[in-house]
Amino acid sequence: MPSISIKGELMPESPIRKLIPFAEKAEQKGTKIYYLNIGQPDIETPQIALDALKNCQDKILKYTHSAGNSSYRNKLAKYYQKNSIIISDENILITTGGSEAIIFAFNACLNPGDEVIIPEPFYANYNGFAVTCGIKVIPLRSSIEADFALPPINEIEKLITKNIKAILICNPNNPTGYLYKQEELEKLRDIVLKYNLYLFSDEVYKEFCYDREHYSSLKLEGIDENTVMLDSVSKRYSECGVRIGALVTKNKKIISTALKFAQARLSPPFLGQIVAEASLDVSHEYFTEVINEYKNRRDFLVNALNEIPGVYSPMPKGAFYTIARLPVKDADHFAEWLLKDFSFHNQTIMLAPASGFYASRNAGNNEVRIAYVLKLEDLKNAAAVLKKALEVYPHKN
Amino acid sequence: MPSISIKGELMPESPIRKLIPFAEKAEQKGTKIYYLNIGQPDIETPQIALDALKNCQDKILKYTHSAGNSSYRNKLAKYYQKNSIIISDENILITTGGSEAIIFAFNACLNPGDEVIIPEPFYANYNGFAVTCGIKVIPLRSSIEADFALPPINEIEKLITKNIKAILICNPNNPTGYLYKQEELEKLRDIVLKYNLYLFSDEVYKEFCYDREHYSSLKLEGIDENTVMLDSVSKRYSECGVRIGALVTKNKKIISTALKFAQARLSPPFLGQIVAEASLDVSHEYFTEVINEYKNRRDFLVNALNEIPGVYSPMPKGAFYTIARLPVKDADHFAEWLLKDFSFHNQTIMLAPASGFYASRNAGNNEVRIAYVLKLEDLKNAAAVLKKALEVYPHKN
Repeated sequence: MPSISIKGELMPESPIRKLIPFAEKAEQKGTKIYYLNIGQPDIETPQIALDALKNCQDKILKYTHSAGNSSYRNKLAKYYQKNSIIISDENILITTGGSEAIIFAFNACLNPGDEVIIPEPFYANYNGFAVTCGIKVIPLRSSIEADFALPPINEIEKLITKNIKAILICNPNNPTGYLYKQEELEKLRDIVLKYNLYLFSDEVYKEFCYDREHYSSLKLEGIDENTVMLDSVSKRYSECGVRIGALVTKNKKIISTALKFAQARLSPPFLGQIVAEASLDVSHEYFTEVINEYKNRRDFLVNALNEIPGVYSPMPKGAFYTIARLPVKDADHFAEWLLKDFSFHNQTIMLAPASGFYASRNAGNNEVRIAYVLKLEDLKNAAAVLKKALEVYPHKN
Repeated sequence: MPSISIKGELMPESPIRKLIPFAEKAEQKGTKIYYLNIGQPDIETPQIALDALKNCQDKILKYTHSAGNSSYRNKLAKYYQKNSIIISDENILITTGGSEAIIFAFNACLNPGDEVIIPEPFYANYNGFAVTCGIKVIPLRSSIEADFALPPINEIEKLITKNIKAILICNPNNPTGYLYKQEELEKLRDIVLKYNLYLFSDEVYKEFCYDREHYSSLKLEGIDENTVMLDSVSKRYSECGVRIGALVTKNKKIISTALKFAQARLSPPFLGQIVAEASLDVSHEYFTEVINEYKNRRDFLVNALNEIPGVYSPMPKGAFYTIARLPVKDADHFAEWLLKDFSFHNQTIMLAPASGFYASRNAGNNEVRIAYVLKLEDLKNAAAVLKKALEVYPHKN
């Protein structure tokens, strides 16, 4: 048979993939599993969005414009404008999820072999998109000791060679929950300008900020031609399945180039755009309630984690994840053991070992990512399970 | 500013893109345009599929499995089995439209620089997917004189070098309407085996066959490891906007590799899968009626074309397109002139110049692609417009 491609071989598997068979077996035995490993919120999709779907009278589910429906792009522009981001519909390309926005940005701006600096730990699928587009990821280490703040500017500049073409940040951050400060972003702007780089800014969690406000990269002055913001409605309105994202930039050449990639795939989802457009009409109270809910979950979870002997988690300022350091030698083994060999009152938990979020070897080996997308009651049980598990786990640090 | 990527520069624009402003101006003047250039059918989406959407009770529009819902994959396998194709759910990966199936197939099987033979004229977006994946298209000329049949086997073998890794066919064909005969496919199988190539077979129009039956590449014996079938529900059920396709292959390594690309983008559309799964329950009569409708349109249109002096169109055996040769020097100019400078009883037509469907230079310059996706009444008016236009067009051959 003909051989598989090199990209296909290099393409990383999902970091939790090898844990799934163990979870399935545990469930078959009747063990209740709290899934702390996933980013699928349990918050309901706004009723106004579900109603829009029910009320859709179209008899033919047609292609939409390759750049997305004009009505949706206009309304989305207004949504950004509310946050003092000066954007028009012409700066927006609607994509099939945030994933496609990232791939379009890479393909439009970078050549195979080009390198992108990404603060690590980072969203594991950036690796997959980099392999897809033939791009190399250069990790910029942020550490749990510094609560995952951006390293000093000279640390960043050390990484810059002629191959570096872009910096990619996720703000607020998945998996760390870190929320970049305006000053940090301004430092990045200076580097971007000095070395003529692109700044890709993944802001899909921007509505989920606690304690202080989000500052969008699109507000940074002087780098309009360099900045590409990547967005998605998946988490914002708890509608991950509609697959609607956006690529937003004031650089017209990037928009017209990305549009060519968009034309080849014809259209973003018609039904998803109906849901996403209607979601923009949610009340101010909707976010107040949802953010309050996540904040309560965060406060409970992070405090509970830090009360367990040997566990440390920074207090995340945004998104709904945290990276916690555990008193174990190997978090991969611990996560497997939790599913295979442990239960407490017939319950266990599924964790995402953090090593999958690092590009550097042997980094994050005793860390896990925890998503607080479950109800407070479930999080309480999950924290009790973790505490008990760490008491009896045989391979502690 | 940083520069745009080489791929971005190479990425082709839609072949009809430059005609759109002229169409908009003609509409502004009040001219009625018959759009013969597009593949958006006017057939209604099956009611059973629209009802499934209305009846969806989910309160959270969640991610689905990256490979697609298991219920949908199982039912789709049964649909293929009805046509004596031996396929299980494990051979199927649900994709975001047929477009993503093609990109996954290229990325999983081919390396940048690899070459793929495609009979031309071919679906113009294959060029875009090839650029996206760094693949080179080697056109295999099929001619209107031979009604677009596959050239003799020795013509195909002449093109094979060490860089050729695959053959891609579209069966039935967009844009020619050509339906490959079993003997032709068996010849391709022999070549695929002899030179250890992949066979990519785009069968999205397989339900639309007239005069004789479709023969799927998946039925070819002895090349299970080489064959990848690319599918989509867009045209089959007139639901282009749901963005649901499939990659189907018995080669397990391709499925597991494509799944890694699928996991990076998380999930195909949730709502689209509901519509697509329900569509599989349409009655036998649904296709009988739809195919009868297209057959009537084809018969009228192709006969009407061939009655116009100097025009020739083969009788397409499948899909809903035909390539017609016109008595003009430059079909690009003619298509523009129709929108800019011509109207007949305040009506005109939009055509897709065929040059955009050829990779060879100066090929198809006096040909156009016509889609018969409009009602018979509209096709009658459109044919009358074309006849009149060719009487007065000043740059004839």
